[in-house]
Amino acid sequence: MADKIQLSTGLDVRRACRRGQWTGPTAGLAANYVQANLVTLPREFAFDFLLFCQRNPRSCPLISVTEAGSWQPSEVATDVDLRSDLPRYRVWQDGNLVDEPTAVTDLWRDDLVSFLIGCSFTFEASLIRNGIPVRHIERGCNVPMFQTNIPCRPAGRFAGPLVVSMRPLKPSDVLQSFEISSRFSGSHGSPIHVGYPEQIGIVDINRPDYGDAVAVEEGELPVFWACGVTPQAALQKSQIPFAITHAPGCMFVTDVIDPQSSR
Amino acid sequence: MADKIQLSTGLDVRRACRRGQWTGPTAGLAANYVQANLVTLPREFAFDFLLFCQRNPRSCPLISVTEAGSWQPSEVATDVDLRSDLPRYRVWQDGNLVDEPTAVTDLWRDDLVSFLIGCSFTFEASLIRNGIPVRHIERGCNVPMFQTNIPCRPAGRFAGPLVVSMRPLKPSDVLQSFEISSRFSGSHGSPIHVGYPEQIGIVDINRPDYGDAVAVEEGELPVFWACGVTPQAALQKSQIPFAITHAPGCMFVTDVIDPQSSR
Repeated sequence: MADKIQLSTGLDVRRACRRGQWTGPTAGLAANYVQANLVTLPREFAFDFLLFCQRNPRSCPLISVTEAGSWQPSEVATDVDLRSDLPRYRVWQDGNLVDEPTAVTDLWRDDLVSFLIGCSFTFEASLIRNGIPVRHIERGCNVPMFQTNIPCRPAGRFAGPLVVSMRPLKPSDVLQSFEISSRFSGSHGSPIHVGYPEQIGIVDINRPDYGDAVAVEEGELPVFWACGVTPQAALQKSQIPFAITHAPGCMFVTDVIDPQSSR
Repeated sequence: MADKIQLSTGLDVRRACRRGQWTGPTAGLAANYVQANLVTLPREFAFDFLLFCQRNPRSCPLISVTEAGSWQPSEVATDVDLRSDLPRYRVWQDGNLVDEPTAVTDLWRDDLVSFLIGCSFTFEASLIRNGIPVRHIERGCNVPMFQTNIPCRPAGRFAGPLVVSMRPLKPSDVLQSFEISSRFSGSHGSPIHVGYPEQIGIVDINRPDYGDAVAVEEGELPVFWACGVTPQAALQKSQIPFAITHAPGCMFVTDVIDPQSSR
């Protein structure tokens, strides 16, 4: 396994993934670099999915879309291969999760279109720099993610619930976390809820639908951001024959530093 | 012809168009209502075109996209028929302009997807309310529009030059026009150029490629905004077999009042 501390740029992370040296979550890696969710599907379904993103920009802010067959999102990275540069993938058939490999080179097809969608990991370095602790980074685990009862706006084959990530914060940090994340509009922006998980349909805050559980301590509030795993819930429901995504928390890291990171 | 003064809401304009009582430009009508460019094309080309919009958000800010076959963009209007509610249309075959009818009901097909794209007419009422005269409204003519030498980012079949609209302004009004229009990010936002038409590839400011010529008086500066006619230049180059658009300046007027209009 690569030393986490050495993975300080997007290219560092991508190369470590390509060599099989990093297969875990990417939160806390390559501080300030834009991280992205991946959705790869046949061109036949690409219009419906692009429309789903356009209609649900809070959960699906688009960073880049490739031409069919291409594994090189050249707008956001050089020395890049989308088939191997993520720590871990998910392979979907007819809406079912069938595999979680560390590369999808063998599965690639000429008709696959890849969508890169913003990720809240992108603004975590700014939270930390401003003195707001991020618990899943401190614990070295994955961020907890939950399906909500908030419906996405459907588009063609795609519909489903909004998925959110959760970070427990002190009330005194909540307002500043709003201010900081709101600047990162391409990475989900400000939170969509704070305080009452049950109000957005989350039954048990200790049992996330994706990622790892993280305790909300006495005197803290759970803060929820829209999450780029939302398309995975929609893929399940759509039952389209084939798709590839990242494994939740295991993102594609670009060469781009968000200009907001320098503030 | 309907009395211009009576067309004070989006529905007023749409009904007048539907009845054949208004067939001209919509600048100055239904003040504060969001106006939109129309691009309607077969579903086969819808992914490429949606991607073109996503890659060129300044010229192609998407307001709404219909399901295939639908003529009702219900997110932005009720009592609506996209086939007849615009003053005038353009019909394209293999990239050639073949007709400019006032309705396209007979040409509609089940596979047509319609894209509504923001329009700078939306912020003109705010300019006027702030004491900035809009000459083409004063003259009762169409806004002048020009092809530039600024390339759009291509997507699949679609590529072409950025098209801009021009308003001549006093230097003292230029800054405020930037401030006001920058708030209307869904309607092209702030200008893309001021001052030197030749720097963006415009040879003769008195010979617009679309709309009517409007004089730039002594002591004024020409101010250029990205324009939703940009897709028409891309449609021409793409030579796709069939498409429908609005005629330049003859927009679809929605039921939506831009919240920025109240400032």
